[in-house]
Amino acid sequence: MLLNDDFLLTTEWARRLFHDHAEKMPIIDYHCHLDPRQIYEDVHFSDLAQLWLYDNGAGDHYKWRLMRANGTPERLITGDGEPYEKFLAYVDTIERAPGNPLYEWSHLELRRAFGIDLTICRANADEIWRRANERIAAADFSAKGLIRAFDVRCVCTTDDPASDLAWHKLLADEEAENGFKVLPTFRPDGLMGIDRPDFAAYLARLAQVSGVDVTDWESLKAAAAQRVDYFHEVGGRLADHGMNSFFYAGATEDEVAGIVARALAGEAPSKAEVDAYQSALTLFLMGEYERHGWTLQLHANVFRNANSRGFAALGADAGFDSAGDQPGLVGQLALLLDAANSADALPKTIIYTLDESQYMGIATLIQSFQGGCRQRLQLGCAWWFFDHFAGMKSQLTMYAQESLLANFTGMLTDSRSFLSYPRHEYFRRVLCHTVGEWVEMGRLPEDEAYLGGLIEDICYNNAHDYFGFFE
Amino acid sequence: MLLNDDFLLTTEWARRLFHDHAEKMPIIDYHCHLDPRQIYEDVHFSDLAQLWLYDNGAGDHYKWRLMRANGTPERLITGDGEPYEKFLAYVDTIERAPGNPLYEWSHLELRRAFGIDLTICRANADEIWRRANERIAAADFSAKGLIRAFDVRCVCTTDDPASDLAWHKLLADEEAENGFKVLPTFRPDGLMGIDRPDFAAYLARLAQVSGVDVTDWESLKAAAAQRVDYFHEVGGRLADHGMNSFFYAGATEDEVAGIVARALAGEAPSKAEVDAYQSALTLFLMGEYERHGWTLQLHANVFRNANSRGFAALGADAGFDSAGDQPGLVGQLALLLDAANSADALPKTIIYTLDESQYMGIATLIQSFQGGCRQRLQLGCAWWFFDHFAGMKSQLTMYAQESLLANFTGMLTDSRSFLSYPRHEYFRRVLCHTVGEWVEMGRLPEDEAYLGGLIEDICYNNAHDYFGFFE
Amino acid sequence: MLLNDDFLLTTEWARRLFHDHAEKMPIIDYHCHLDPRQIYEDVHFSDLAQLWLYDNGAGDHYKWRLMRANGTPERLITGDGEPYEKFLAYVDTIERAPGNPLYEWSHLELRRAFGIDLTICRANADEIWRRANERIAAADFSAKGLIRAFDVRCVCTTDDPASDLAWHKLLADEEAENGFKVLPTFRPDGLMGIDRPDFAAYLARLAQVSGVDVTDWESLKAAAAQRVDYFHEVGGRLADHGMNSFFYAGATEDEVAGIVARALAGEAPSKAEVDAYQSALTLFLMGEYERHGWTLQLHANVFRNANSRGFAALGADAGFDSAGDQPGLVGQLALLLDAANSADALPKTIIYTLDESQYMGIATLIQSFQGGCRQRLQLGCAWWFFDHFAGMKSQLTMYAQESLLANFTGMLTDSRSFLSYPRHEYFRRVLCHTVGEWVEMGRLPEDEAYLGGLIEDICYNNAHDYFGFFE
Repeated sequence: MLLNDDFLLTTEWARRLFHDHAEKMPIIDYHCHLDPRQIYEDVHFSDLAQLWLYDNGAGDHYKWRLMRANGTPERLITGDGEPYEKFLAYVDTIERAPGNPLYEWSHLELRRAFGIDLTICRANADEIWRRANERIAAADFSAKGLIRAFDVRCVCTTDDPASDLAWHKLLADEEAENGFKVLPTFRPDGLMGIDRPDFAAYLARLAQVSGVDVTDWESLKAAAAQRVDYFHEVGGRLADHGMNSFFYAGATEDEVAGIVARALAGEAPSKAEVDAYQSALTLFLMGEYERHGWTLQLHANVFRNANSRGFAALGADAGFDSAGDQPGLVGQLALLLDAANSADALPKTIIYTLDESQYMGIATLIQSFQGGCRQRLQLGCAWWFFDHFAGMKSQLTMYAQESLLANFTGMLTDSRSFLSYPRHEYFRRVLCHTVGEWVEMGRLPEDEAYLGGLIEDICYNNAHDYFGFFE
Repeated sequence: MLLNDDFLLTTEWARRLFHDHAEKMPIIDYHCHLDPRQIYEDVHFSDLAQLWLYDNGAGDHYKWRLMRANGTPERLITGDGEPYEKFLAYVDTIERAPGNPLYEWSHLELRRAFGIDLTICRANADEIWRRANERIAAADFSAKGLIRAFDVRCVCTTDDPASDLAWHKLLADEEAENGFKVLPTFRPDGLMGIDRPDFAAYLARLAQVSGVDVTDWESLKAAAAQRVDYFHEVGGRLADHGMNSFFYAGATEDEVAGIVARALAGEAPSKAEVDAYQSALTLFLMGEYERHGWTLQLHANVFRNANSRGFAALGADAGFDSAGDQPGLVGQLALLLDAANSADALPKTIIYTLDESQYMGIATLIQSFQGGCRQRLQLGCAWWFFDHFAGMKSQLTMYAQESLLANFTGMLTDSRSFLSYPRHEYFRRVLCHTVGEWVEMGRLPEDEAYLGGLIEDICYNNAHDYFGFFE
Repeated sequence: MLLNDDFLLTTEWARRLFHDHAEKMPIIDYHCHLDPRQIYEDVHFSDLAQLWLYDNGAGDHYKWRLMRANGTPERLITGDGEPYEKFLAYVDTIERAPGNPLYEWSHLELRRAFGIDLTICRANADEIWRRANERIAAADFSAKGLIRAFDVRCVCTTDDPASDLAWHKLLADEEAENGFKVLPTFRPDGLMGIDRPDFAAYLARLAQVSGVDVTDWESLKAAAAQRVDYFHEVGGRLADHGMNSFFYAGATEDEVAGIVARALAGEAPSKAEVDAYQSALTLFLMGEYERHGWTLQLHANVFRNANSRGFAALGADAGFDSAGDQPGLVGQLALLLDAANSADALPKTIIYTLDESQYMGIATLIQSFQGGCRQRLQLGCAWWFFDHFAGMKSQLTMYAQESLLANFTGMLTDSRSFLSYPRHEYFRRVLCHTVGEWVEMGRLPEDEAYLGGLIEDICYNNAHDYFGFFE
């Protein structure tokens, strides 16, 4: 039966582990793209179309590109169509999407956030629209209400180093009342962007907020370090580096200083200079993170804005990205990890990739740099285009085979939507499915204390202990 | 039981979907290498060795290389051995090939085309040989007879742009009587081959058949366009580009004109010139296809003629090819799709690859260029070395995860053999197996109207609607 | 139940094939890193910590890196901690490693070598330690005792061409008494190392042992050929080439002679020269192997000593390696195979890789060079980081899909440990699991004579016939 209690739980042990252990654990959503202001203001939502297709403003490009693949006119995706028409176009899309994670996520969201057990299809569209919108209109159906309803204890947003984190500070003040933390994550895209036209302008903003006059490589590092300190004060314990592609290039401090000086003087840096600068800045920041006990997330292997016409029309994050294809990327990451490790500057690190064919390289690479704490380096959970049943099972299997699955920090939503917490449930079902299979094959003992502890650790305890959000 | 009614159908839903839905659908074989003349002449066959190992003249290199791997002397593969000896050598090979698609295909062919339920082994060899050859001798065991017996409604052959398509026209005249269409596919290897010694000779043939005097880039394009028009008139709706490797190189029209002029003057083009010419010609042709509502098939990632000694002895297509290994190929395809899209010249496109590790890149890349019609771009079905159980299941799963499986145009034979239609049955079993598993896991509703429609669409209706062969 | 009789055997046919066929077959361990002297001297062991973590001196870096990932201090891994403390640290690690092959191997070793059925955990640690050490103290618990207990008929060690093979000769003298062969494998790392500082010193040793004065490329080849002859006399039938990365570069004999001359004169060779030399030497040795009827093993795609700090502290083989990431490696191997084949110098060859994403390229590439004997080229069994359940199943499936699984030479241990023979049992269970699944799906006949023969061939008979150790 579609998405019933035992959805994905194909063995007796899977069912027991999920229902007696996984299901009851709270959530730490250590990576998402929610807007802290919307959380603080406890926003409400207008209707199901806005919630599903626009994530309350941010735009759900997962869904947009799927609708495009169904031939939906852009008017009903990002254009000025009526909300109900857009909702119907999405229903039509979902009907054509068996086996797609959005098929299952959308059904899970209906069931868990709205209590609607219907199949998503034209025949049920009116009833879904009516009942969901009734629920949306309720007073408790709000940003904070949803976070609490899903028992989320910590939400980590994604933030610019130049942010003043004003909303996070306000949220920290009411943390006891809210029952959950909202913590910032340091995402230094702006700092990395030495090849962007707005680099100087960005540094000016950074100078203002940090109080450090950024005029050269030294002061740039000082300002960055000040921001790490500041994020730490506000509760931040995480950084997130997007690495669409990455080429490690060692350089002396003098060389990097020269690159920065020329960039500040308005010269466009060469590709080699960009690589050297970004390598040096990454290493510097890794040292800062390590010093603060932070965890670095590396999101590798993305090809952004492949469709230049779509990008020109709708900008970034509009559904025109794909899995990256940089040959030899894992070797480049190896050089980075080795340089950081040699400089005592290797923080706890989670590496995500979009392409399963890189799992083996990354999963074995990180094992060469373990030590000093439990599972210092982690193979990141199945991410973005890959966070579906097969992807999650593949990631869990690879993690287990090459390292210590019992130490895995588990799932995140990576989402712009307040509705997306059922992804944690989805992950937990895949986890129990996978472990249950191993038990049935005689690969693990039929010992509920052991297996239940393992599941609970991966669902919650490991993230709790590893990241240190609650210390 | 070997290849019984429920072969590959491991769940109740798989069995129901196959027997009540998939099994009854006709076949559109939109990609094969049959000879239209043999169809028109309704050829008969001499014996099972000829049928299995020589595909009535074309040569079945899938089987040849498997026989070589079993140590079969070349005399019994491509040499002058007796047909019965060759048949025995193939039987010996199949006995050693559990889990190989040829094991299953050959058994399926025996069962479906000959009504022989025996296991292929030495002990049964005589009886198989005798009974199969009796059947082969029957009047209705002919090219057309087989096409009709498998309920094939449309066969797309693979054709040179310089072909006059005489056999296709004769077949079109008797289409009503035959009960099936035979349509040409535009395969411009000759046009692409600016680095081949026979390029000028090829263009001379093209000039003759097109009536366009090919003297430069402009007239080359005009001649090519004329051939697309001509193929369209004869019913062609498909192109097929073999891309063993591909390097996108943008160039101005003037630059391309210069490259063509030098090539026509007898200068060997550089690698960069070949890339620029092939990129430009591909883009030009894509525009022509789009204008005609055609579909482009890109067959990527092949390493041809790896064994130069074997190639010297037996020529191309003799079993010496393997999966390609071009680093960064997906990124090159991205540039091509983007250039075509920016020029309003992106036709419906199906991309095939031989290496599963590229599925993720391709499946996510094409999603960045969808729109305008249902599933404009498709992840091609598991192809050649990869069209076995695991390959097909992997392709279906990847398609579903990243796009809308309900829009998938389904299977083809890619075959030189009139016996190969059971591959469609094989595919349909894998499809029902896969969808059945999803239903059992609670990932799809137990709704026969929905699921049956999905299966029927993928087996036949989508290809019918997408390609437009019947319009 | 954990590791019970039917461990991994999920179907009725899997159980029948394992218990009635696989289980009873002897072992040919054609690739390991055991020390022939320890075998000859029939060494005993001090305790379970030494056996598990140090492999009687060699060091088990599989386990070391897993312990590091659990945060174990180096003192309890490679340092001066007490054996019992180290054992406890390993127990703690195993408890966190569900789904890791070491979890299952360590349990299998306890059961098969010690008769201990306990789960590895803190609660059972004392009893395991006590009972295992009692068993270790027994007179028959020795190198030879273990080899005999696991019914190993042939052990192939890994040896330097400059070795005098003294221990192998002593072992040959007592072969009848021992009941097993110990044969050398030619591993020419020293010969390949033209870029190593000790290259001249190595050649001096080679000259001494071969009696050929090595002064140039010609005499280098003559000395190498002498060593192949010598290994052959002592029973060697195998070579093993480690190819962390490989770039094929064709060169004339004169060019190679020049490269060697300059290296002997103390000039550091360029990267291009190293490639040309190694390509030429590899081709030369392949010809020698082919002439002797040997088999070449190519171990491709490793990134060694990624962690330079760890390497500086502990040297090679200390747990700091990972899967390689050389773009286009398969294409380079294609050039090598083609050059060898064109020169009638392609021996029987087994290619191993660490990255599943290269299986398709390698499995299809080798099929282009088959012939002359049964399965001249083989896709090597799942290796090192990849020799777990999923890896073995993937390799078997890929082998079957692209070639003739019935001809597969099967499993090896690749181990430094006298305890590791249960890996053969593990492999046989995965094999029976995989074939059993195919039978259940109707892909193979329910014919025990056929299926049992297939299993027995892969477990033992194929290795027996293919390598020629017993001729």
